[in-house]
Amino acid sequence: MTDAQPASPRTTMRRGTDRAVYERQRIRTILDAGVIAHVGVTTDDGPIVLPMAYGTRGDGDAAEILIHGALANAMLKAGRSLDVCITVTIVDGLVVARSPFHNSMNYRSVVVRGTATAIDDPEEKSTALHVINDHIAPIWDTARPPSASDLKKTLVLSVPLTEASAKVRDGDPIDDEADMDGPYWAGVVPLTSTWGEPHAASDLADGVDMPESVIALGGSDAQPT
Amino acid sequence: MTDAQPASPRTTMRRGTDRAVYERQRIRTILDAGVIAHVGVTTDDGPIVLPMAYGTRGDGDAAEILIHGALANAMLKAGRSLDVCITVTIVDGLVVARSPFHNSMNYRSVVVRGTATAIDDPEEKSTALHVINDHIAPIWDTARPPSASDLKKTLVLSVPLTEASAKVRDGDPIDDEADMDGPYWAGVVPLTSTWGEPHAASDLADGVDMPESVIALGGSDAQPT
Repeated sequence: MTDAQPASPRTTMRRGTDRAVYERQRIRTILDAGVIAHVGVTTDDGPIVLPMAYGTRGDGDAAEILIHGALANAMLKAGRSLDVCITVTIVDGLVVARSPFHNSMNYRSVVVRGTATAIDDPEEKSTALHVINDHIAPIWDTARPPSASDLKKTLVLSVPLTEASAKVRDGDPIDDEADMDGPYWAGVVPLTSTWGEPHAASDLADGVDMPESVIALGGSDAQPT
Repeated sequence: MTDAQPASPRTTMRRGTDRAVYERQRIRTILDAGVIAHVGVTTDDGPIVLPMAYGTRGDGDAAEILIHGALANAMLKAGRSLDVCITVTIVDGLVVARSPFHNSMNYRSVVVRGTATAIDDPEEKSTALHVINDHIAPIWDTARPPSASDLKKTLVLSVPLTEASAKVRDGDPIDDEADMDGPYWAGVVPLTSTWGEPHAASDLADGVDMPESVIALGGSDAQPT
């Protein structure tokens, strides 16, 4: 398991080094490849973790992760503060070791900690929603543009990517020396996620063609390395 | 989106109804199909969410979800309390709506809230680890049994499944009536996860055959519906 370069007082980043730049790129690459985020907040009732769509934009200190929707709304209401943890994980395989103690998964994950801020301005909100909607495929431009009422009903939150760290495990199991010659199998079973053949809604109006962005998504690797 | 039957004062379950039994089965089916859990705890530093392996066992009020490893350990140390939220999500597809406001994902998810308790007795710990290790495939019996030292180094936590809820979205997008005849495509791009061809560790001793459990996993659907 490769530990991430730390990234804040909580995760202790050393800014301005090549290592920090590398780490930022690595975080961004994992976030770009992920499909959903698990967002945690603290409520009066204890921690809660919910799956949410997300997108990223910006560079360097201006980089941010955006989340949205009814869930974000409920979280804002439920949580005393907007302190959040956003975790994106891609599982790449099951690591079968010679002893169960060393069984593991190959994975790429990013943990973002920070304060979520609501984006209120309708134009900024629309731009942010565009980013979230196009995270998996560029489907925004072929849809009906959002109305003022759509925007009013949608809550978009932004969290800076300044306090983020990545963790990656890949390769073979690492077993105890004493087990290396034992009669125990060791290896990896890879896991891949693939977008299937897109299918039109049963109530789709006649004569509406499938957008190029959707055609291109079908059959592609959902979480490329 | 189908809302789960609530399950506690926090999620308000009505016990003893057929609906509650159905809900318990649905929760268990989703947990059995999931690959990893995202576990949230509250620390002095705010919420934190980490990916972890898990397993489930038991029925009815005795049903529990088990998590383990170094991460659990760090969480125990970091968290003031053992109040946790364990979320398992399976993404089944991208839902492309006529308007971005209705874009969504098809998914199955379970949210478990509760108090995590450490399992200390070595024999009970071994049994619990067996459950976690065999969650994806029965790889425990072909590995070297855990040593007393392995068990000492491993922390296993149990959380009752009494306070759990499931949420499932499937099917076509639901758009605004006014958009139904517009020139906008709508449909679903399915997402599937598949275990690939298992490969042996490069340092595997000669003459050790791949276990049947690993052979059977290769090529199978990781998250069957």
